Amino acid sequence: MRRAGNRKGVCNMKILTLKEWVAIESDSSSSALFGKVMQMVNVTAEKIRSLGGDVELADIGSQQMPDGEIVQLPPVILAELPKDSNKPTLCIYGHVDVQPAKKEDGWLTEPYVLTEINGNLYGRGATDNKGPVLAWLHAVEAYQALKQDLPVNIKFIIEGLEEIGSYGLDALTKQRNDTFFADVDYIVISDNIWISNKPGLTYGTRGDCYFYVKVSGGKQALHSGAHGGSLFEPMADLIALLDSLVDAKGQILVPGIYDDVAPLTEEERKLYENIQFDLEEYKNNIGVTRLIYDKKEDVLMHYWRYPSLSIHGIQGAYADPGSKTVIPNKVIGKFSMRQVPNMDPVVVEKQVTEYLHEIFAKRNSSNTLKILMPIAAKPWVANVNDPQYVAARRAIKTVFGVEPDMIREGSTIPIAWNFQDVTKKSVMMLPICGADDGEHSEKEKISRSNYIEGTKLFAAFFYELAQLR
Amino acid sequence: MRRAGNRKGVCNMKILTLKEWVAIESDSSSSALFGKVMQMVNVTAEKIRSLGGDVELADIGSQQMPDGEIVQLPPVILAELPKDSNKPTLCIYGHVDVQPAKKEDGWLTEPYVLTEINGNLYGRGATDNKGPVLAWLHAVEAYQALKQDLPVNIKFIIEGLEEIGSYGLDALTKQRNDTFFADVDYIVISDNIWISNKPGLTYGTRGDCYFYVKVSGGKQALHSGAHGGSLFEPMADLIALLDSLVDAKGQILVPGIYDDVAPLTEEERKLYENIQFDLEEYKNNIGVTRLIYDKKEDVLMHYWRYPSLSIHGIQGAYADPGSKTVIPNKVIGKFSMRQVPNMDPVVVEKQVTEYLHEIFAKRNSSNTLKILMPIAAKPWVANVNDPQYVAARRAIKTVFGVEPDMIREGSTIPIAWNFQDVTKKSVMMLPICGADDGEHSEKEKISRSNYIEGTKLFAAFFYELAQLR
Repeated sequence: MRRAGNRKGVCNMKILTLKEWVAIESDSSSSALFGKVMQMVNVTAEKIRSLGGDVELADIGSQQMPDGEIVQLPPVILAELPKDSNKPTLCIYGHVDVQPAKKEDGWLTEPYVLTEINGNLYGRGATDNKGPVLAWLHAVEAYQALKQDLPVNIKFIIEGLEEIGSYGLDALTKQRNDTFFADVDYIVISDNIWISNKPGLTYGTRGDCYFYVKVSGGKQALHSGAHGGSLFEPMADLIALLDSLVDAKGQILVPGIYDDVAPLTEEERKLYENIQFDLEEYKNNIGVTRLIYDKKEDVLMHYWRYPSLSIHGIQGAYADPGSKTVIPNKVIGKFSMRQVPNMDPVVVEKQVTEYLHEIFAKRNSSNTLKILMPIAAKPWVANVNDPQYVAARRAIKTVFGVEPDMIREGSTIPIAWNFQDVTKKSVMMLPICGADDGEHSEKEKISRSNYIEGTKLFAAFFYELAQLR
Repeated sequence: MRRAGNRKGVCNMKILTLKEWVAIESDSSSSALFGKVMQMVNVTAEKIRSLGGDVELADIGSQQMPDGEIVQLPPVILAELPKDSNKPTLCIYGHVDVQPAKKEDGWLTEPYVLTEINGNLYGRGATDNKGPVLAWLHAVEAYQALKQDLPVNIKFIIEGLEEIGSYGLDALTKQRNDTFFADVDYIVISDNIWISNKPGLTYGTRGDCYFYVKVSGGKQALHSGAHGGSLFEPMADLIALLDSLVDAKGQILVPGIYDDVAPLTEEERKLYENIQFDLEEYKNNIGVTRLIYDKKEDVLMHYWRYPSLSIHGIQGAYADPGSKTVIPNKVIGKFSMRQVPNMDPVVVEKQVTEYLHEIFAKRNSSNTLKILMPIAAKPWVANVNDPQYVAARRAIKTVFGVEPDMIREGSTIPIAWNFQDVTKKSVMMLPICGADDGEHSEKEKISRSNYIEGTKLFAAFFYELAQLR
């Protein structure tokens, strides 16, 4: 009884700390709130120092914000716990900034007051990413509380600008590649979710090529009654261009686009077989009656290991409610293509640009076409047989009693690719958060169980990683 | 010299009256400004009374505004001058409300201060439609000043809500069809412009069928990284539907759509031959290098007597600057088709709806499609040999020394069709405003010359109309 009471007490302490962290509104979406982000960085730094860590608040300079203002950025935490050169070194990445949240957005609880309902801890940042960052720190704390040596050397890189694009992080990684990262063996990121209530281990993310298709006509928008009929209308050209990109079944029509997609190996195919993913539940959650593919494996592969193309919208056309009879003169179609290994954004840009110009030329329009690719993020894939992955699978088996699902992310998490590209170290994503955690939504939460078992998982992972040395 | 001086004095008085009218900010765009519209209606009524007119301010009830508020509408002026049953009766339509105007929109002059620059009178409402309304009243005044009997009986129907859609006018026309309109022989509208600096006489307008194409998918918008690849994306469906409507040369692809277009007669074709319309100047004005057609006649026919289809935009998709990776779940494409005689909006709706549903069915998408036609305005065309047109041509020849261009409007002016449909009377549009008058723009003006010669034209038109009796 006494021990159980103690364990519960420890758990409640951990939840209390998360409550304190969630209470700091470290919303990085506006530089006006950078003071709160800074406060959160300082609280995190202090916590690491309390574990005996040596903390540097690395200056990442200033940045021009979308509103034009140039502001000093909150620093990045570079920290390390006392080192033993016989042990492997693990570098843990996390972020302590959050998405915006206001009660009136539709929150049922106060977004910055961690509130437990039916075993779930609701609050902005609970799952993304304050909960997981604290779980790492608590895992370290657990060893210290038990007066056990940590089996691995630990470094931290923790930022406050992830939600707005990790300004300065890539440059800092490059700058510290020969110093801070020199003795790092493994980099681990815990900033994503499982795809069900079963633990998952993430070995890939898709990249992203985002395109702007600009069609320009006359000097000004014109009345479609007075001028419709003899003009080459920019919208008609743009719609035809966008319609040439993808067919009804989601197949991308740009010639050559599938040439560089890595062939599916038998080993990879097998990873999909046992994944816990209920198609009916998924369809029900997002509210669609049917998907393009009927089989779980096909659905997941088209989210994770094949490219996809989505048309997002049109800037410069009439988008308001009501009926305006306008011929817009400058319209910008926006679409993006998720990249997979071994696609190269440089090649993709060329293929897309040439294809669209060819289609446009056939229309013999008087308008002009310009194609831009403002975002080019590469896909990332890890070797699932890397020691870090083996250690994580063993730790998951120990704590949760199951083999993890080997999963990927369909979306782009540039830090994984960036870390791997710059440091050439092994990079792994080790999520502890559930599929229903609602990151970025008005229902963001982490379950009490995931938060506590996740802490245990991280502690077990330290142990297993050391065993493989 | 003395007479010239007097004439100039009379002209300056007329301009002074226009200055007083322009000074009243009778902007009907917001019900908050209806007081000013009401003031303008009263000033107009008073002016008609000063000419000996009997004025009724006809109640047109209340209306729910776009903001939800229910407001009492400014009344419509129904007036008539003393009647002689031996003379034909002309009913003159006009409106005294204006589009919004603020100096900061880009006006070089104060919008509500009529300002003369190089023979042009700049100000909101100068051409649309206060100048022409005053020109009609001044034409009556001229006869009275010369102590001559008016050759025709004159009625006025003048409203204050034209710029927001002539609320209540159609209902009022129907209600008064057997009373106010019973003895009317001709209805004349002077609320449009020439297509060059040469006088024009307008005998047709296109109608308008406005369509909403709604494609709905899941319960919420989704992240295109996480969910792109296995979903039937509503935007892909919508883009394909919109792309099926019109080809690169502006030809409408909806089967059967051209079946009811009135064949071009030799008589009609000839009307296009002598129209003063400089293609190079037109292209230069709107800033395009090339039109779909090279010949003036073809260009004008495709603006005036053939249907056209314009895609206006998409509601519900991402339309802001920047790069959002979203799969919108509910998107509404907006397009409109200009109607020409003898197309019927009921038939057009059926053709468009069936065609789009057929194309959608072939895609075998999981999304749902709904097509709405919130606007169905019929085209209008008059008989150019009607006595009213003959009289107007003679009056134009007398005042301007030229045969007018027989023109149409590509856009929709529902009042012309509504008047003709309800009253079965002869309807004519007799513009006195120049092609460069910039109605609705920040350069709205009427030239001193058009304002004065227009008044003369109207006076001459009274005379010629009586001669044809």
